[in-house]
Amino acid sequence: MDFVPQLATDSEVPLYRQLYAQIAGKIRSGEWPPGQRLPATRELAGQLGLNRGTVAAAYEALESEGLIAGQVGRGSFVARPAASPGVQWTALLDRAEPPLPAAVHGLAGSGISFMTSRPSSGLFPLDDFRSAAEAVLARADLADILQLGSPSGYEPLRRYLLKKARSEGVAGQADDLIVTNGCQQALDLIGRVLLRAGDAVAVEDPIYPGLKSLLAGMGVRLCGIAVGADGVDPAQAARIFERERQRLLIVTPNFQNPTGATLPLAGRRALLDAAGRAGVPVIENDPYGDLRYSGEPLAPLKQLDEHGGTVLLRSFSKISFPGLRVGWALGPKPLIDRLRHAKESADLHTDQLSQAVLLEFAESGRLEAHRARVLKAGAERLAATLEGCRRWFPEGTRWTKPEGGMNVWVRLPDLLDAGELLARARREGVTYLPGRYFAVVRAEGGALRLSFAGLEPEEIRRGLEILGGIFKGELRRSANLDTAPAMV
Amino acid sequence: MDFVPQLATDSEVPLYRQLYAQIAGKIRSGEWPPGQRLPATRELAGQLGLNRGTVAAAYEALESEGLIAGQVGRGSFVARPAASPGVQWTALLDRAEPPLPAAVHGLAGSGISFMTSRPSSGLFPLDDFRSAAEAVLARADLADILQLGSPSGYEPLRRYLLKKARSEGVAGQADDLIVTNGCQQALDLIGRVLLRAGDAVAVEDPIYPGLKSLLAGMGVRLCGIAVGADGVDPAQAARIFERERQRLLIVTPNFQNPTGATLPLAGRRALLDAAGRAGVPVIENDPYGDLRYSGEPLAPLKQLDEHGGTVLLRSFSKISFPGLRVGWALGPKPLIDRLRHAKESADLHTDQLSQAVLLEFAESGRLEAHRARVLKAGAERLAATLEGCRRWFPEGTRWTKPEGGMNVWVRLPDLLDAGELLARARREGVTYLPGRYFAVVRAEGGALRLSFAGLEPEEIRRGLEILGGIFKGELRRSANLDTAPAMV
Repeated sequence: MDFVPQLATDSEVPLYRQLYAQIAGKIRSGEWPPGQRLPATRELAGQLGLNRGTVAAAYEALESEGLIAGQVGRGSFVARPAASPGVQWTALLDRAEPPLPAAVHGLAGSGISFMTSRPSSGLFPLDDFRSAAEAVLARADLADILQLGSPSGYEPLRRYLLKKARSEGVAGQADDLIVTNGCQQALDLIGRVLLRAGDAVAVEDPIYPGLKSLLAGMGVRLCGIAVGADGVDPAQAARIFERERQRLLIVTPNFQNPTGATLPLAGRRALLDAAGRAGVPVIENDPYGDLRYSGEPLAPLKQLDEHGGTVLLRSFSKISFPGLRVGWALGPKPLIDRLRHAKESADLHTDQLSQAVLLEFAESGRLEAHRARVLKAGAERLAATLEGCRRWFPEGTRWTKPEGGMNVWVRLPDLLDAGELLARARREGVTYLPGRYFAVVRAEGGALRLSFAGLEPEEIRRGLEILGGIFKGELRRSANLDTAPAMV
Repeated sequence: MDFVPQLATDSEVPLYRQLYAQIAGKIRSGEWPPGQRLPATRELAGQLGLNRGTVAAAYEALESEGLIAGQVGRGSFVARPAASPGVQWTALLDRAEPPLPAAVHGLAGSGISFMTSRPSSGLFPLDDFRSAAEAVLARADLADILQLGSPSGYEPLRRYLLKKARSEGVAGQADDLIVTNGCQQALDLIGRVLLRAGDAVAVEDPIYPGLKSLLAGMGVRLCGIAVGADGVDPAQAARIFERERQRLLIVTPNFQNPTGATLPLAGRRALLDAAGRAGVPVIENDPYGDLRYSGEPLAPLKQLDEHGGTVLLRSFSKISFPGLRVGWALGPKPLIDRLRHAKESADLHTDQLSQAVLLEFAESGRLEAHRARVLKAGAERLAATLEGCRRWFPEGTRWTKPEGGMNVWVRLPDLLDAGELLARARREGVTYLPGRYFAVVRAEGGALRLSFAGLEPEEIRRGLEILGGIFKGELRRSANLDTAPAMV
């Protein structure tokens, strides 16, 4: 092999890189065919008057690009070009929708975590759960539960839920019910059936990240309706409906996530009227309705709606065991028919073991007994949260006063940014979710969600004392900066 | 009220309808305002010289349209226009994708049913299942199983599956694994991440209805690769890849549904080569691979693929309990990351109780013990099916000879239409799924799928004897028609 590379010792390009480039050129042009042996590094280094390490570095770069291959004891050879370019996953995935904002599940809550809107594991009635599960295991029809089931849901559970909804006046004769993997899947199936990329969907602002991610993934445009102390403003909803046709309105009338706000009866009626006049279907997302700690329950939109335009979503997740993914959608038959088709495509049907166990848990009265304990604990935790906000948070802080659910929404004084302060809070052992994860249009830098249901009252008090200290300290610091003499 | 309608007694339009139309016109124009009282039927009938029943019929039609309302004892009044037109579900749902072809789950299999590709409930090891479930119920970390989990799956199960795949040489360091609600959800999530409406996707032809429906719902175009005795033809796949960019190739190399065909090793290599050269990701759908009754297992595509372009889907459904919806996808990390996001949007995570029970069932060795029994029974059932085809089906019938799985594909002699003959078979107590449910491009009128795994050998023999009698009888009848003297 006659190989005399042109190497410039005064170049900014390192010698090994120059050597690499010239050999790569010969291989790529085909001048050096696959299988041709390369000079040994010692030999080439001697020939060219180079350090042997320089040649070795060039060979390494060639090898890492797959241009040459070393064979132990035999030296290096020009490699055969890969037969297959293979699949370019990065390019394929880039073409798909851009990655969603960091999912909340990815955010580890450590220490005293106000991060996740979920029930307390400590309150799980494990013995009652075991009894319900054992009753199912002892059943004569256990094999049917383990066999392939129906996309509509485990029929005994479906019938139970529908009968209950009818007896409560929530379901009419024109309604049907499908079991889903929690409210999240019900929302997903509704989106698959009713939404296309580019559609406009009216949602509450702020809204929980799981729903924001889901809708973003579908490529729909979100129109946010501001949530106040009394939930969404029906007049704003009506204006939005007039301005542009909305494909759906998704609303959480009870203890909304993240604000905890509840829509009063007059607001429910006005919202239904606005949606009905505009012909917009209402998706009533109600995972928290059964978690009212004080005050009187309000009729669901589904019950108030005389025009059959509302679909009610409920779930066992918040009142019992979220690890068992069982919820349901109740609505007009033609829609539920289509959801059944979508469900069959999505995953055939919801897990039947959990459906059977939850049915047993509910029918045996264990669910109601558990709910009574959860309501008592929830009331204490909510009270501890509201008391902690009053006691520890700086003047000028505002927070919602829900009568149930799992979340309180806090707005810090203007100078404070809840997102920036999270890192400090985490260092002191307390975490929460800052407002930006919930923003549709209106990003509130000072806002944060306190999910209190998973914490003991004592943890809540300690956590809020720590947060209050951080917030007050930062406020003093900002005030000092503001009043510091101008730098001249 | 001065109301003198113009009624034509010689018109084809009934008098009540003419009266209805004229009153409706006055109401819609606003000439008769809401609340105005209508004449009593007797009074108006007398005025106009009409039969009272005619007037009552007109009022009834007005009332059914909501234009008037009757008040008991007070007569009829012009109704207030409905404040809300309400939601037009039919129109909203029409705008969505057209309803899919009748889902297979909707087709009731009665009597001896060869309709569903699912395991036999009779073989479920209920005591072993109870033991596994009870072991989970007794665990100290039961509360963690019942709490909200990770979109990746129940971590102990995910680790177990990944470790097993690594020890079998199926998973490499660049791979990751996500637990899904069976293979169906894995396919759905892959579609959500990688497919857009209008994309081309290469699939086997024939293919099972669940996959066809799923892809149809996504609005993708299917390119069918014919399945022969040795599975898909890699040369045809290569031609399809050259003709048009395919976004995915979805293939079931072991005991394909519906044909039962298995792709031999050379075919697997050739297919991977064709897909790799074209840069097309391969989705290896492998729910049946563990159900080989004879012959040697073949390396999965995932293992043979040196370029990381393959995603392997497996499931507990076919080898244990399909009512527990647990499967998984194994593939390159960047893809699995995106599937995790999609999974979180779809339903947060797979049910954890079933994941924990199936892990216990597998780790304790119960799954392998069950599989041994299932393989023995499957071999007998497959043998009974092949023997029954030989013994009872008319000359000229062809069928596949799988070495495992749950399905045999039958092609009847040309004159017979399996779809038309199903009604007769059903009357005689036997059902199967005709070929048209599986066709991508090539509809084979004479084809049908025999799903044998759920039936006892004796049922299989009896069922095939009945089917053979029907097919032979129809063949004789057609032959007689063919040889009958011409009608002159």
